[in-house]
Amino acid sequence: MDKKLANEALDRISIDAFKTAAKTPIVIVLDNIRSLNNIGSVFRTADAFLVEAVYLCGITAQPPHRDIQKTALGATESVAWKYFENTLEAVQSLKEANYKVVSIEQTENSTMLNEFTPEKSEALAIILGNEVKGVDQTVIDESDLVLEIPQFGTKHSLNISVTTGVVVWDLFNKLKA
Amino acid sequence: MDKKLANEALDRISIDAFKTAAKTPIVIVLDNIRSLNNIGSVFRTADAFLVEAVYLCGITAQPPHRDIQKTALGATESVAWKYFENTLEAVQSLKEANYKVVSIEQTENSTMLNEFTPEKSEALAIILGNEVKGVDQTVIDESDLVLEIPQFGTKHSLNISVTTGVVVWDLFNKLKA
Repeated sequence: MDKKLANEALDRISIDAFKTAAKTPIVIVLDNIRSLNNIGSVFRTADAFLVEAVYLCGITAQPPHRDIQKTALGATESVAWKYFENTLEAVQSLKEANYKVVSIEQTENSTMLNEFTPEKSEALAIILGNEVKGVDQTVIDESDLVLEIPQFGTKHSLNISVTTGVVVWDLFNKLKA
Repeated sequence: MDKKLANEALDRISIDAFKTAAKTPIVIVLDNIRSLNNIGSVFRTADAFLVEAVYLCGITAQPPHRDIQKTALGATESVAWKYFENTLEAVQSLKEANYKVVSIEQTENSTMLNEFTPEKSEALAIILGNEVKGVDQTVIDESDLVLEIPQFGTKHSLNISVTTGVVVWDLFNKLKA
């Protein structure tokens, strides 16, 4: 019999320990995300994989917010975040800090996520776009790379918080492989 | 310049083509999931990766439902689903059909997802548990394996639809590698 672990047994780190822990060299950029549910869920994913920061851009709401908290469950306290009025400003600042800017989109020349291998410990900024419009074309134009999650069904895309989870999990494992 | 693709350019398959397409040998089992948002999002992930079916158990709501549709965006039309009053019934029926029953949980002897490699084309049933209680201990007791997503932050778990996306993406790639 394989017993479930109580939350206390998981030995999660404290918020203070999180702040000083070595981070995964990934910044998540949210380009005009409308859903507070998605924003909160992205914070929770960022917490789980020790992501450096979440950049909230344009109409993306900022914590503290009751409806972000519903899905973030406190992860806005651990994960660093910053607000930019314009996503292009965030991209500019990331480029100056030597991040590889990677839009997650479906474009004419996008690279499939399963075919991409980052350089070891390369710093990556991944950009997730609006629920309806996707990543803005002007942001794609400034990106170093476009990554696409291959999809085989009837719908055109995955939910944004799911997409973030898939991409962060995939890159996290490749960066530490 | 790398142009975004319009939805029509993505060449997604029709619902009829989905029904007859060769499927990924994965069944997703939802053990008493409360959030309609999560259920809809799981359907959308199941559609993207040609998952065989979603089994809805216990208090997990069934389509058609307005609040499932909000995140499923039609994926309940393509993906096969079945309702079971009790999750153990679903597990029993999957075992009889030779599925390897895999609970996604944090247990004393769980295997880390990144360390698990399924047999080629092994049929897998993955069980996701209630938002607060997780997978029921009686269901874990009947499972062939428990898989855990390693997590390094302050919170005890990821959102359920994110967890489903991460696990399906990971297993999908390993099954076809």
